[in-house]
Amino acid sequence: MNLFPDAKILDVDLSNKEITTRVLAGEIYRLYPGGSTLGLYLAIQEMEPGIDPLSPENMLIFSVSAMTGLPISGISRLNVTAKSPLTGTMGDSQAGGFFPAHLKANGWDAIVFRGKAEKPLYLYIEGDKAELKDAKNLWGKVTGEAEEIIRGEIGDKEVEIAQIGPAGENLVKYACIINMCNRANGRNGMGAVMGSKNLKAVVVKKGKAAQAFDRERFQGLAKSVAERLRENETVAGLGKYGTDGDLEGFHQEGFLPTKNWTTGYFPEGANNITGMTMYESILKERDTCYACAVRCKRVVEIPGVVDPLYGGPEYETCATLGSYCGVTSLEAVAFANQLCNMYGLDTISCGATISFAMECYEKGLINDKDTDGLILNFGNHEAMTALVEKIAKREGVGDLLAEGSYRAAQRIGKEAIPLSMSVKGQELPAHMPQFKPAVGLIYAVNPFGADHQSSEHDVFLMMPPDSRERRRLAQIGVWKGYDNPSVIDDEKVRFAFDSQKFFSILDTLCLCQFVWGPAWELYGPDDMVDLCKYGLGWDTSIYELMLVGERRINMMRYFNAREGFTKEDDRLPQRIFEPFKDGPSKGICVDKEDFEKAKELYYELAGWDKETGNPTESTLRKLSLGWLLEKDQVESLAY
Amino acid sequence: MNLFPDAKILDVDLSNKEITTRVLAGEIYRLYPGGSTLGLYLAIQEMEPGIDPLSPENMLIFSVSAMTGLPISGISRLNVTAKSPLTGTMGDSQAGGFFPAHLKANGWDAIVFRGKAEKPLYLYIEGDKAELKDAKNLWGKVTGEAEEIIRGEIGDKEVEIAQIGPAGENLVKYACIINMCNRANGRNGMGAVMGSKNLKAVVVKKGKAAQAFDRERFQGLAKSVAERLRENETVAGLGKYGTDGDLEGFHQEGFLPTKNWTTGYFPEGANNITGMTMYESILKERDTCYACAVRCKRVVEIPGVVDPLYGGPEYETCATLGSYCGVTSLEAVAFANQLCNMYGLDTISCGATISFAMECYEKGLINDKDTDGLILNFGNHEAMTALVEKIAKREGVGDLLAEGSYRAAQRIGKEAIPLSMSVKGQELPAHMPQFKPAVGLIYAVNPFGADHQSSEHDVFLMMPPDSRERRRLAQIGVWKGYDNPSVIDDEKVRFAFDSQKFFSILDTLCLCQFVWGPAWELYGPDDMVDLCKYGLGWDTSIYELMLVGERRINMMRYFNAREGFTKEDDRLPQRIFEPFKDGPSKGICVDKEDFEKAKELYYELAGWDKETGNPTESTLRKLSLGWLLEKDQVESLAY
Repeated sequence: MNLFPDAKILDVDLSNKEITTRVLAGEIYRLYPGGSTLGLYLAIQEMEPGIDPLSPENMLIFSVSAMTGLPISGISRLNVTAKSPLTGTMGDSQAGGFFPAHLKANGWDAIVFRGKAEKPLYLYIEGDKAELKDAKNLWGKVTGEAEEIIRGEIGDKEVEIAQIGPAGENLVKYACIINMCNRANGRNGMGAVMGSKNLKAVVVKKGKAAQAFDRERFQGLAKSVAERLRENETVAGLGKYGTDGDLEGFHQEGFLPTKNWTTGYFPEGANNITGMTMYESILKERDTCYACAVRCKRVVEIPGVVDPLYGGPEYETCATLGSYCGVTSLEAVAFANQLCNMYGLDTISCGATISFAMECYEKGLINDKDTDGLILNFGNHEAMTALVEKIAKREGVGDLLAEGSYRAAQRIGKEAIPLSMSVKGQELPAHMPQFKPAVGLIYAVNPFGADHQSSEHDVFLMMPPDSRERRRLAQIGVWKGYDNPSVIDDEKVRFAFDSQKFFSILDTLCLCQFVWGPAWELYGPDDMVDLCKYGLGWDTSIYELMLVGERRINMMRYFNAREGFTKEDDRLPQRIFEPFKDGPSKGICVDKEDFEKAKELYYELAGWDKETGNPTESTLRKLSLGWLLEKDQVESLAY
Repeated sequence: MNLFPDAKILDVDLSNKEITTRVLAGEIYRLYPGGSTLGLYLAIQEMEPGIDPLSPENMLIFSVSAMTGLPISGISRLNVTAKSPLTGTMGDSQAGGFFPAHLKANGWDAIVFRGKAEKPLYLYIEGDKAELKDAKNLWGKVTGEAEEIIRGEIGDKEVEIAQIGPAGENLVKYACIINMCNRANGRNGMGAVMGSKNLKAVVVKKGKAAQAFDRERFQGLAKSVAERLRENETVAGLGKYGTDGDLEGFHQEGFLPTKNWTTGYFPEGANNITGMTMYESILKERDTCYACAVRCKRVVEIPGVVDPLYGGPEYETCATLGSYCGVTSLEAVAFANQLCNMYGLDTISCGATISFAMECYEKGLINDKDTDGLILNFGNHEAMTALVEKIAKREGVGDLLAEGSYRAAQRIGKEAIPLSMSVKGQELPAHMPQFKPAVGLIYAVNPFGADHQSSEHDVFLMMPPDSRERRRLAQIGVWKGYDNPSVIDDEKVRFAFDSQKFFSILDTLCLCQFVWGPAWELYGPDDMVDLCKYGLGWDTSIYELMLVGERRINMMRYFNAREGFTKEDDRLPQRIFEPFKDGPSKGICVDKEDFEKAKELYYELAGWDKETGNPTESTLRKLSLGWLLEKDQVESLAY
C-alpha cells in the first residue's frame, strides 16, 4: 500500500440525470480522509459564494471514510455536507445505522449530488452500478411507507435506505435525512437541501463487510470492547438507559433546559421523561448500529400510538420535545419523536422552535389567531404534537415555525428575537453553557451553529486525576482538573479547542463519539490510532489526526467567511448571561466578560483574526490549505 | 500511579557549599517532563534578565528524564541548561554515555548549581548522599588525568564522571562538558559556565538499572531494535562507519562545507577523511552508550599519537577540523579530536573558528604577527592542531579565538565579520542550508544558535512515499515528497517546524535522535509513545509530546526575548545566499527572498510576533505557559 488508499467518488448530476465516477488520489485523500472533511474538500472547490442553499447550485454530498464498515463498534456513520438553509453556513450532519457501512461496502467513499431533478427521483446503488429511478409514487409519503414501497420495487429486502420525509419535500429549514426510519442526519436542514433537488432517497444494496488490514490485531482491538463494556458502569448505563439516562441528573443539578431555557429545573415533569422511566415503561428493546456492541438506541412501543419502527427518543428529544416545552408526558414525547421520524424533522430544532413559540404565546407576542387556535401554553402536549405535524406540512402557523425560531422571531417582531435560543440560526441542544461553559463556547464559535457533538463536555474534567477519562483526555494534552465545572479559564479554553479538534476527527473518520470520544470509556485516542493502523494500514498518529480535525474546522470557517460571516455571528443568546431565578442553579449564569475573554483566547489558539474571526492566511497554510489562498474567492475574505 | 511521577531535584549552592533537595509534583513535571524542558522550567523562574553568563548569577542545570536509564537503546542522554556565554541566549546541550543513566539510577532527575565555589570543587553523588569535594589537585588537568585521580580518590572504579577540561577552566566560550573522556555536551559553552563556578566535575556512583512499568511489553519493544538493526542497511552503516559515513556523499554532491564554507566540495581531501577510510585504517573498535545496540561511537588508535581513551571523530569533527580547514590528514583530525576531548572543547565551534581564522589569514585580515608566527593557510594541519591547544590554554592568538569566530571577527575588523559562519554567535555545523534549506531555516530561528540536531533533515523527504522514513514522518503530519531537496515551500516550512518540535521532545525525554528520530529507522513516533506507556505507565500521545516540544522552544524564545533578542538575530550568514563558484553544486545557493518568506511563515506557524519574532501572549497561553505572563519580567518583552 502507498501512504493512503484512493477514494472512489460517484458524481450524480440530477438536472441531466448523468452519473459519472472519479478517483481521488490517496495522497490527497489522506489530507481529507473521509466524512465531513472529504465533503468539504469536494464542495469548497466548486461552490460559489452567496448561492441559495435551496437552489440547484447547492451541492449535496454523502460521505463515509476509508474505514467505514470495518467490523468494530462505533464505525458506521454517514456524513452529509451542503450549504445549510437553516444557518447559511456550510452545513454538516452525521447519522448512524447500517446505511453508511453498506454504502462503503459497495465501494463508494462519497456521492456528490449536483443540480435539481425535474421530477422526484431516487438513487439506487448496487456495487459499481448506480441508477436514478422514478420517485413519483414515493413523494409525499412518510418514511415508513416510502421504505416499504422501495423494498417492493427493488424486489430485494437486502437494501439500506436514506431518505427524506414530507418535511424535506416541503423545504422545512430543519428537515433531516433519515435511515432505518429512525437514524437521522438531524441538524442543519440537510433534508431540505435534498428536497430542493427532488431527491427522495438513496438506496444501497447490502454488501460484504470490509476486511481489516491486519486482521489479528484488529480483532484484538474489537474484542477489547466487550471486556470494557463488562467493566464499565457508565457504558453499561448508556446501553441500558440510552442517552436519556442523563436527564434526571441534569434536572437535579438545575441544568435541564426547561420552558425555552427560562429555568434549569423541571420539578413537575423531569421524573416522567427520564431514561429510567422509559426503560421501565414503554421501552420495547434496545437497538444498535452496524457492528456496534453498545446498543444505546431506544425502541419504544405504545400499542396504537407509537410504532417500534420509528425507534425511540434520545436525551435531546426528551428535553426539546419534553422539558423545553414543559411537557410532562413521556407518551407525548415518544409520539412527537415518531412524527419527527415519519416526516423527517430534526427533533432538536423542532422541539426548541415549538418551545420558543410557546414562550411567545405566553408573553402575548402571538395569540390564538396566529396559532390557528392552538392554546400554546407550556405543558400543552397536544398542541406540541399538533405543531410537529403542522410544521412538517407547513400548514398554518407551521409554515412560520418551519423556518426555525430565529427567522420566525424576526417575523414576529423585535421582542421575540431574544427568545430564539439559537446560534447562527440553529437552536441550542439541551446542554447548558451555565454548567458547561466550554460547550457553550463551542456553541458560539462552531462553524455550523450551536452543536453539542462538536467538543467534549466540561464534566469529564471533574473526574479523579487517575480516572480513565482524565488519562484519555491527557492524551490530547488536556489534564487540568476542576472542582467547579462552571469555570472558564485559559486551560478550559484549550480543552474546548483541543477536544473540538478531536470531535472533528470523529466526524471525518465517521466514528461514533460514544465509542471513540476522547474521554469515553470504550476506546480512546490511542485506540483510534490503532484502529487506523490495524484497520487500514494507515501509519498515522494523534498528531496527524488532530491536524485533520483542525483542517476541517478551518475549511468550514473559510467557507463561512466567504459568505460574510464574522465574529459577530459567534455569540450566545442573552439569556445565557442572566442568572437563573429558581431551582438548584438559582443565581448562576455565564459571566459575559469571562465569555468574551474566552472567545478572544479561542480565536488566538485557533489562529483566527481577532477582528473578523476568520482563519488567517498562516493558519490555512499551517493546515496545508494554502491552495485556498490561490483561489479568486480569497479576495472576498475580510482579512 | 497518578498522572505522572514526581521529580527529585538536588540543589547545590556552590557559594555556601550547601546542598538541599526538593520534589517537583508530578502534575507539574508532566508539563516539563525532563531534560531541557525541566532545566528551562527551573531556570526561567529564577534567572533575572541581563546577567553575565560567567557570573555566579547564572544557574547550571544537569537534567535527565523520568525515563532515563530504562534498558532500551538510545535512552541515556544528559541535558545541560545555563545561559550561554557563546550566544547570550538560553544555552542547551546534550551528551550520551553512561553518566545520565547512572545519575538517574541514584534517584535524581536534576541537579541545580547556583553561585560560585571559592575554590575548585567537585560533586560526588551516591544515592541520596551528595557531597562537595575539593578539586584543587584536579584543576588544570586534562580529562583523562582527572578521571584517573578521581577514581583513585573515591577508591571505587564504579563511578561515572562528567567534567570540564582546562578549556572550561579557562572560560573558552565554547568549552564543553565531557563524560567518559569522549562524550560531550558540546555546544553553547556549557563547560565555560561550569568553569566559572569553579566546578570541575560531577561524579556519580553507578546504580541499578531502572525497571519498566510494564516489563513484558517493554521488553518486546526493546527487542524489536535488534530485529530492525538486522533488517536495515542505513542503521547497519551507521554502526559500521559511524556518523562520518555520510561525508563522502556530501562531498560528491557538492555540499561538504570546505575551507570555511567557500566551497561545497573537497576533491583534494574528502576521500582521506571519510568514515570508510577511518574504518579501514585507524578504527580500533566501536563503542556504545548505556543499553544501546547501535554502537555508532568510534574508537580510534594511532600508537604514540592517539589514545583510544578519547574515542574517535564524528562526522561533524571530520568536517570542521578537516574540510572546513582544508585538512586532508585523517591522523591530524583524529589528533585534534583527541585534544578537544582532553581539553574539553566543542569540536564544531573549535574547527569552524580555526577555519575562519585561516580565511582571515589568506585574505590578509590577520598576519603572522597576529598568529604567533603560525602559517595559517587552509590545509596546514600542524597549525590547526597547534591552534586547538592554544585556544584551550588561551595562549597568544588562542585567546582571541577562544571567544569564537563571531567575537573574534568583531575584534579583527569589519571585513572579517561576514567570514564568521555563525548564527547568534554559534558556528554552523557541517550541514549546508543550500542542500537542506529546512535545516538552514532552523539554524536561523533556533533559540540557541545554529544547530543541526534541532530538526529533521530535508533529505528524508526524497525517500519513496512508502518508505519507512516517509511513513514515520507522516505520523507527525508531514508527508509531501520532494525531488529536489533545495526547495523551500509552505509544506517544507511546516516540516521544519513540526520536526523541530519532535527533536525538542527528544531533548526533553533525553532520547538519542539516531534511535528515536522522527524519520529514523529503529523507532518512530509511535514507538516513542509506547516507550512512555510501557516504560513509565505514562498514558500519553504524540499530540501531548509535540505540545511539550513546542513548549520547550517557546520557553527558550521567551527567555531570549527578555535578553533583547529579536527577529534580527534570526539570520544566516550572507555566504549562504551566494552561489557556489565550483564543484558539483556550482551556481547553487539559498534564494534570499524564499528564505525571508519561509522565515515569515515559520513565525506565523510558531505563533511568534511578526515584528519581534517573540512568542505572542496567546502562544504562551496555548502552551500552558500563561504563568510567565504574570511575572514582572514580561513588561520587558517587546510585544
